[in-house]
Amino acid sequence: MRTITVAVAGASGYAGGEVLRLLLSHPHVEIGALTAASSAGTTLGGHHPHLVPLADRVLLPTNNETLSGHDVVFLGLPHGQSGAVAAQLGQEALVIDLGADFRLQSAEDWTEFYGGEHAGTWPYGLPELIVGEGRQRDALKGVERIAVPGCNVTAITLGIQPAVAAGLVETTDLVAVLANGYSGAGKAPKANLIAAEALGAASPYGVGGTHRHVPEIMQNLRLAGADDVTISFTPTLVPMARGILATTTARIKDGVDLAAVRSAYAAAYDDEPFIHLLPEGQWPTTAATLGANSAHLQLAIDDRASRLVVVSAIDNLVKGTAGGAIQSMNLALGLEETTGLDTIGLAP
Amino acid sequence: MRTITVAVAGASGYAGGEVLRLLLSHPHVEIGALTAASSAGTTLGGHHPHLVPLADRVLLPTNNETLSGHDVVFLGLPHGQSGAVAAQLGQEALVIDLGADFRLQSAEDWTEFYGGEHAGTWPYGLPELIVGEGRQRDALKGVERIAVPGCNVTAITLGIQPAVAAGLVETTDLVAVLANGYSGAGKAPKANLIAAEALGAASPYGVGGTHRHVPEIMQNLRLAGADDVTISFTPTLVPMARGILATTTARIKDGVDLAAVRSAYAAAYDDEPFIHLLPEGQWPTTAATLGANSAHLQLAIDDRASRLVVVSAIDNLVKGTAGGAIQSMNLALGLEETTGLDTIGLAP
Amino acid sequence: MRTITVAVAGASGYAGGEVLRLLLSHPHVEIGALTAASSAGTTLGGHHPHLVPLADRVLLPTNNETLSGHDVVFLGLPHGQSGAVAAQLGQEALVIDLGADFRLQSAEDWTEFYGGEHAGTWPYGLPELIVGEGRQRDALKGVERIAVPGCNVTAITLGIQPAVAAGLVETTDLVAVLANGYSGAGKAPKANLIAAEALGAASPYGVGGTHRHVPEIMQNLRLAGADDVTISFTPTLVPMARGILATTTARIKDGVDLAAVRSAYAAAYDDEPFIHLLPEGQWPTTAATLGANSAHLQLAIDDRASRLVVVSAIDNLVKGTAGGAIQSMNLALGLEETTGLDTIGLAP
Amino acid sequence: MRTITVAVAGASGYAGGEVLRLLLSHPHVEIGALTAASSAGTTLGGHHPHLVPLADRVLLPTNNETLSGHDVVFLGLPHGQSGAVAAQLGQEALVIDLGADFRLQSAEDWTEFYGGEHAGTWPYGLPELIVGEGRQRDALKGVERIAVPGCNVTAITLGIQPAVAAGLVETTDLVAVLANGYSGAGKAPKANLIAAEALGAASPYGVGGTHRHVPEIMQNLRLAGADDVTISFTPTLVPMARGILATTTARIKDGVDLAAVRSAYAAAYDDEPFIHLLPEGQWPTTAATLGANSAHLQLAIDDRASRLVVVSAIDNLVKGTAGGAIQSMNLALGLEETTGLDTIGLAP
Repeated sequence: MRTITVAVAGASGYAGGEVLRLLLSHPHVEIGALTAASSAGTTLGGHHPHLVPLADRVLLPTNNETLSGHDVVFLGLPHGQSGAVAAQLGQEALVIDLGADFRLQSAEDWTEFYGGEHAGTWPYGLPELIVGEGRQRDALKGVERIAVPGCNVTAITLGIQPAVAAGLVETTDLVAVLANGYSGAGKAPKANLIAAEALGAASPYGVGGTHRHVPEIMQNLRLAGADDVTISFTPTLVPMARGILATTTARIKDGVDLAAVRSAYAAAYDDEPFIHLLPEGQWPTTAATLGANSAHLQLAIDDRASRLVVVSAIDNLVKGTAGGAIQSMNLALGLEETTGLDTIGLAP
Repeated sequence: MRTITVAVAGASGYAGGEVLRLLLSHPHVEIGALTAASSAGTTLGGHHPHLVPLADRVLLPTNNETLSGHDVVFLGLPHGQSGAVAAQLGQEALVIDLGADFRLQSAEDWTEFYGGEHAGTWPYGLPELIVGEGRQRDALKGVERIAVPGCNVTAITLGIQPAVAAGLVETTDLVAVLANGYSGAGKAPKANLIAAEALGAASPYGVGGTHRHVPEIMQNLRLAGADDVTISFTPTLVPMARGILATTTARIKDGVDLAAVRSAYAAAYDDEPFIHLLPEGQWPTTAATLGANSAHLQLAIDDRASRLVVVSAIDNLVKGTAGGAIQSMNLALGLEETTGLDTIGLAP
Repeated sequence: MRTITVAVAGASGYAGGEVLRLLLSHPHVEIGALTAASSAGTTLGGHHPHLVPLADRVLLPTNNETLSGHDVVFLGLPHGQSGAVAAQLGQEALVIDLGADFRLQSAEDWTEFYGGEHAGTWPYGLPELIVGEGRQRDALKGVERIAVPGCNVTAITLGIQPAVAAGLVETTDLVAVLANGYSGAGKAPKANLIAAEALGAASPYGVGGTHRHVPEIMQNLRLAGADDVTISFTPTLVPMARGILATTTARIKDGVDLAAVRSAYAAAYDDEPFIHLLPEGQWPTTAATLGANSAHLQLAIDDRASRLVVVSAIDNLVKGTAGGAIQSMNLALGLEETTGLDTIGLAP
Repeated sequence: MRTITVAVAGASGYAGGEVLRLLLSHPHVEIGALTAASSAGTTLGGHHPHLVPLADRVLLPTNNETLSGHDVVFLGLPHGQSGAVAAQLGQEALVIDLGADFRLQSAEDWTEFYGGEHAGTWPYGLPELIVGEGRQRDALKGVERIAVPGCNVTAITLGIQPAVAAGLVETTDLVAVLANGYSGAGKAPKANLIAAEALGAASPYGVGGTHRHVPEIMQNLRLAGADDVTISFTPTLVPMARGILATTTARIKDGVDLAAVRSAYAAAYDDEPFIHLLPEGQWPTTAATLGANSAHLQLAIDDRASRLVVVSAIDNLVKGTAGGAIQSMNLALGLEETTGLDTIGLAP
């Protein structure tokens, strides 16, 4: 088949770097322009020494001139900048936004959680999302724009949506607490992100319903079949570079037993190449998903507490960002969905 | 005042070692016999090289002969062994059990969660526990036996009990998820505890209501005023040696606002020397409690989810085990409760 | 080309698991029997949850019956067991020993460092090793037995051999100190390897010339051209799962400047697909090599100390073990040396 | 005895914070003004949540007005600022500089390694430093100015000076490689110090004789008796918050055996309260020194390599900075040298 040329804007950041790491193994992709803002003019090797084949590539400024002429453009830009870049590129390129600008359908939610004006809504890049009787992948074929989901959103949605879609749990009182690796916080140096603070410590952030991923989770679960959704969501930073371990619980409906839940999860995911419901008795570890486009799941019913507990593990930069983005790219371009992606993690 | 002689059984383990670390700073304590099982005959320095002043102490076998004649005996023994040792020692010694044997009031709970026969119930060593109108510390004066709480139990109980006692939340659908350091899992080498598995990974254990700390949490919150308690409780191991960060949520009752909750917490804890409700806007980090007998708390109300979210941080080996044990010892012996304990953590 | 069938003995260990992780991406390999000792009868997924495509494979007992009939057999066995297994398999299989049994040429060295009788010497699986005017890869074509080098040995040899071969440094007073990840210590649970001991700590092992990798390093550097070699070698465990950062220093000969050294390294490695001399000013980080068959190098001359300082980074399980093994397998089988291996690390 | 009032300039940084952590346990100290630059006006609790008793203290601007009137002033300031502050304070206060400005005796060294003009030389705050037949502590009694040593310098000097002073090793070809925790790099957010880069990685810095601690090490060892000193010194960052593990090697002189070396170390350190030569067979771990003013040492002779290998472990912020500073303060003020300091680390 023809070669697909890809540009990456924001190539010096973690999301951009991870797109490049994965694309280097994609059989149909040729990596084109790599652009950056303040790092323009430097070589990629200084930012991502692990990307040896691209070490000498010089980062170009991010603008229409450098980005146009590619089949696909990935955008790893600060909030609010994707729309203008996409508008300039026109419809001939597939534009995949790794940021949040176009994820939400509700302008009201946008304004409440992000502030400012809502840029719009692009097709949502979570192929496994249950949408009524189908999946979101059906909506991604041939699209020219893709909004990649938030990493926490992916972990929680994949964890709880089969129970929601099958009507096995109440959706009005979900509780999710996450253990998050530091790469999810990005590469900009901030006081609370330095290693001396992180090593040997766990701490929460975005507590009390203020995290920007909340409306996106609710949007997904409504698509999966919930009438109404409320969720208490607390991410916590723990000393690892990558990975999300999400513990999501929901009140189980009367009479629902573990067999029924496992059956619903099996029905939802047995054909999914990247989602693995573990054998009974085996619980997920983020280590098993490192570098892979996998989500690992396990579940239990707590009879005393009348809650379903689902634990899901992903690599925030792969299934949570760049891997999911490429999976969606494959769908948009009519490629096999799994092209260039695999399920094998790097452990220990 | 007179010198208190203290023996520690199980001195080669983490709990025993931490009791010794703290007792070395206790002004009234003289450290007597240190005993062990298979490590008897070795010196303490090989097990705990950080305890320099005791490095040359030879570990004795654990038996009545080595332990008797001390004012206080700490027991860091495997489940089921504390009762026989205590019986031999008689009433002249204060015996403080760091294990679980005597924590539960209900023989039925014991059998269900631990198996085997219930050994009995000793006075419960959590001085700050709200018991009706008073505190558990009132029940510890002059006692001859103390059962030290579980570390997760301490983190959750301290986190949520003021809201429970003040009637501000529903107690029938609590959800707690914890990030736990590895020292809580003990010192015995097991496949899932080796460093290569732990580094860079997060994973849950005891999911679905099976963890042995569940009935103890419920027992505490009933004492604090709950009619009925249900709790979904999930601990997760994260790559740190010490520390527990507990995120505990409860449905908030109608009309309760943040000011009311903060006021209840202030009333409960302002006079507590070891519990610190942080200023608004500052969230706990386990790092701030390392090595200290402190618990740090912060809370938020998630209006959309109608839940109170409390985050509490402790050092599992100090406030969660050895520090709490010494605090209770001080009370039992009529010493100032804070003697030999402090609130200053080791950070970064 | 024809499919190569591969068996792995010791598949539940770290070395065996890493061979499998890499072989899953090898285009010509079909994975055959996976065997184990005490874990026979269990599924691979319980030992290596990251190897999703092989999760349901049942581990067979390690014996001639299960291992015979494959084109290649990798042995990840305890010391002293490889010889008997290989003898049974005969010459029709390529046998690749991940252990130490057949690395040393000198029976005397073997007895001194490992004890017991020397099993023999197999072709040494470090293709980049400088041997006189050539490379060790020339000696690997068509061989039926391969002894894979020790991981520390690989890091140090690749780091210093160009300077040795070019006669730029004295070889009689080398000093190497390494920061090592815990996976190099294997998967067997031992007291000093548990996570609570490892997290937040650095400690040395095998100090003072006692480490078994010493004679192997000396053997390599003599092949690379040294008349005589002495090396002080100290590995230190640091809190990471994977990776070796080796700092190797040697007295620089009079009149040798940095340009001469860089030139010798460029000549030695510019054509090597897996060895990357970084641009001046950029120092290696183990993170850039994680999961990759890469070695990253940088060097400096300390004029005051009259020493060359070379820092080399590898992933101990890949370039240090399984990746190097597959690279050698490719050579033995007449495949392209780089088949199924890549240079792209997993960072951050 | 009278109460000593202490001010700390640069109280929001790691060095300043650690001075405060330790002073809170000092029986004769009253903590006075805490000052900062850009953080003036904020409370200490936001910077150091572990320092609970000082949480509400407001940071004042750093100037003569806020600092004067104290018995002791600790300075944790950027390079080049200590001299002017000290000059304003006059001789009535003991001024202890945690920075580098006044450590070096040679103006030439200063200019070469730090650049700019040499500020001068203050009495050097390493009490255990061997100076001819005596110790540096003798020079600290009653002084009004103290320059606290660099943390790497302390680890290496304590590790190798007994062998140097006893003439057991050559001092012209020392090699030291260190594993360093991240708090040694300070609290300012920099790209290479963020947690996502640090976790799971080891990397060197200041390679090739360029690190500013080199001339200070040489100065110390000359005082300890070396005619001439050359040292190759390479620090490496590893994923821990605190701690330095220094591996220092030196060519052993002919005929010197382990007994002679141990005897020299015992003679040098048996009376030192903070330096612990471990029993034979036990190697240092940084964990055993965390939070303590201890240095743990062990040594071996590598007969093949003809080198003495000394491994020393310290906490960079305690014995390497704040603890050593307070030890020197005690000496200057005529207090017992060990007042307020202890030897018990926080492990695991």
